[in-house]
Amino acid sequence: MSGIITLTTDFGSKDPYVGVMKGVVLGRSPDARLVDLTNDVAPQVVVEGAFLLQSAWRYFPEGTVHIVVVDPGVGTERRRLALRVAGHFFVGPDNGVLSAALTDSARGPRAPGTAYEARTIALPRDAEAASIEDEAMMITPVSATFEGRDVFAPVAAALSRGVGLTRLGPPLREIQLLPAFRAPRTARQVEGLVIHVDRFGNVVTDIRKEDLSYPFVFTIGEERVEGLARTYGESDGLCAVVGSSGYLEIALAGGSAAERLGVARGAPVTAS
Amino acid sequence: MSGIITLTTDFGSKDPYVGVMKGVVLGRSPDARLVDLTNDVAPQVVVEGAFLLQSAWRYFPEGTVHIVVVDPGVGTERRRLALRVAGHFFVGPDNGVLSAALTDSARGPRAPGTAYEARTIALPRDAEAASIEDEAMMITPVSATFEGRDVFAPVAAALSRGVGLTRLGPPLREIQLLPAFRAPRTARQVEGLVIHVDRFGNVVTDIRKEDLSYPFVFTIGEERVEGLARTYGESDGLCAVVGSSGYLEIALAGGSAAERLGVARGAPVTAS
Amino acid sequence: MSGIITLTTDFGSKDPYVGVMKGVVLGRSPDARLVDLTNDVAPQVVVEGAFLLQSAWRYFPEGTVHIVVVDPGVGTERRRLALRVAGHFFVGPDNGVLSAALTDSARGPRAPGTAYEARTIALPRDAEAASIEDEAMMITPVSATFEGRDVFAPVAAALSRGVGLTRLGPPLREIQLLPAFRAPRTARQVEGLVIHVDRFGNVVTDIRKEDLSYPFVFTIGEERVEGLARTYGESDGLCAVVGSSGYLEIALAGGSAAERLGVARGAPVTAS
Repeated sequence: MSGIITLTTDFGSKDPYVGVMKGVVLGRSPDARLVDLTNDVAPQVVVEGAFLLQSAWRYFPEGTVHIVVVDPGVGTERRRLALRVAGHFFVGPDNGVLSAALTDSARGPRAPGTAYEARTIALPRDAEAASIEDEAMMITPVSATFEGRDVFAPVAAALSRGVGLTRLGPPLREIQLLPAFRAPRTARQVEGLVIHVDRFGNVVTDIRKEDLSYPFVFTIGEERVEGLARTYGESDGLCAVVGSSGYLEIALAGGSAAERLGVARGAPVTAS
Repeated sequence: MSGIITLTTDFGSKDPYVGVMKGVVLGRSPDARLVDLTNDVAPQVVVEGAFLLQSAWRYFPEGTVHIVVVDPGVGTERRRLALRVAGHFFVGPDNGVLSAALTDSARGPRAPGTAYEARTIALPRDAEAASIEDEAMMITPVSATFEGRDVFAPVAAALSRGVGLTRLGPPLREIQLLPAFRAPRTARQVEGLVIHVDRFGNVVTDIRKEDLSYPFVFTIGEERVEGLARTYGESDGLCAVVGSSGYLEIALAGGSAAERLGVARGAPVTAS
Repeated sequence: MSGIITLTTDFGSKDPYVGVMKGVVLGRSPDARLVDLTNDVAPQVVVEGAFLLQSAWRYFPEGTVHIVVVDPGVGTERRRLALRVAGHFFVGPDNGVLSAALTDSARGPRAPGTAYEARTIALPRDAEAASIEDEAMMITPVSATFEGRDVFAPVAAALSRGVGLTRLGPPLREIQLLPAFRAPRTARQVEGLVIHVDRFGNVVTDIRKEDLSYPFVFTIGEERVEGLARTYGESDGLCAVVGSSGYLEIALAGGSAAERLGVARGAPVTAS
């Protein structure tokens, strides 16, 4: 085990929710190293949480435990999931937010004209999953509104100490997964979506670098953006760049592309 | 000692104030584990800082040192306080922000029709307090505007290394405390206040679960909310939920209850 | 080495950029202690990043590595810099953002009527600098948009493990530096600039305490502020205070001076 535990949540920084989870972890796994990936996922937007996790988790060493809590269904009947993939561990609600742990082929494509919605998918053979059910692993009684504290933090601490998935609850063969983050190609174009707007106002899409082909013409909002820049700030106006995670971004040198374009998460972007 | 030091401040994240405090701690206590509870307490709102601390500190192991700095009187004559309660340590200004370390009975009730204001209270026998006065424990000359750096961080590091309260300055028998966070009951109703709005827009009140009785009717802003949901999102509109810290919250599925209601910290809420 | 690595960036908290850098560091230097100074530097404002670093780095022990990334030119031909000064290490783009590592005399004064702009300056003899060029120290291929992840984080981890500057690339004799943060004196007045607005709305200027002389009269926006308070909240209205880093601040008790004055970064302030 690396002893590292990361957090990806929509809990924000106004409240001690994240700090409390860290206290629970450190009380049970005193040597854990805690790293925030982000706690500012848009409230209850599972797709954004999954997308941001995807760009991050492989930069951590094997044995890292990733806690991911974006959970509109907290306290309801949805399962609580622990996953082992490629030597990493993931804990969170079974609502698709852990999708980034799985490969594109395991997750399957997004159909043209559809949004990202979780659906039941068979777990690939090189992944292991458990439904977290053993109350001995939790702080009880479990709060109906804060399972991050009472379930996911103590389970992450246990995994970090080397406890196996089989101790947490029954194994799962099927889990909820979002389609692969990869905009579908039709005969005429790539039909992308805005997945995220970063703090610079860069508009991050689900169009992958390997699906782009010359000549580059992108349509978003009322605008057409032509050409592909190598980095930000090569042009004065809007430009298209392949960001550090391999996805197409629309950026504006010295300003916010999202504001200029008037677009937000979910807006269509096409490459043709 | 657990070696853990938590921070609860209104210093925000735009400035390196919190990072500087961590540097001071680590220079003096290299093995300390630092955890932010929140640094986004509303500027100078002592009551909110105390309330947020209350929901968090018991989730840390014994021996943890909690630094709490919400300090409109920084640099003036108010005392600087170190407390030992239930095996935990607390440092901060003597303005009520450390109230959550003490029990409800030690703090006494809030009178109907009054707000939370600090007043002088005798320290209970199972708590120990000192006025931080020994300059050998500080970075001198002490800044009149940043005692977090020059006083509270080095003192927390010392406590974390096992230095006793008696080394910091004279013992105190009376300190400034806020009333217990528990809305008063009158013959007809429970007279609550909004204490905090969380990042989801949930309106957190000081009405405790154990003071609620059937039938549940809550009045806030211009609205009446009936019934008590077990968790968020069970209804479509506004709902009342007992949150993870045992206090009544008003929530709105998929939106901000605070915005819908047009209420902010200090607004009245009644349960009848 | 202290094993401490600090981060000062404009990456914000909405994205896992900072978390990813921490993962890269911990994968290569598992015992590193990571401390955020601030990740909320105004996007691409190099001067603000340098100024905030200046108030912070000396509070960390010798051997600390400071990563500083505010980098409008990411992916372009500007050099990547590693510095050793006073037993501390600094890594970041060679655009002036590391200026705070150097003394005022090395950096030279700001001329009256000019803004802070980086220019080529000879490195003083007690500092050591290298141009980071050895790809064996990087994650390759290096992203054109996220050198924090691919260059600065792995180099910081290497420095933290004791790798010398000479291993990173050729030594440098000249680097890009901002003028000293010290408002110029003319015959009649001190000609300051607003450098930063903190989370309380305090307006932080580049006027140093030692350049102030009686009687104190400050002009900013449409307002005149007379006198110098010892701490915040001594007066009811606007007041001038020497902040914890030795610079003049204009503050407003219980409110935001920046809003009241209608001023932002770059606005002139004079002391006469």
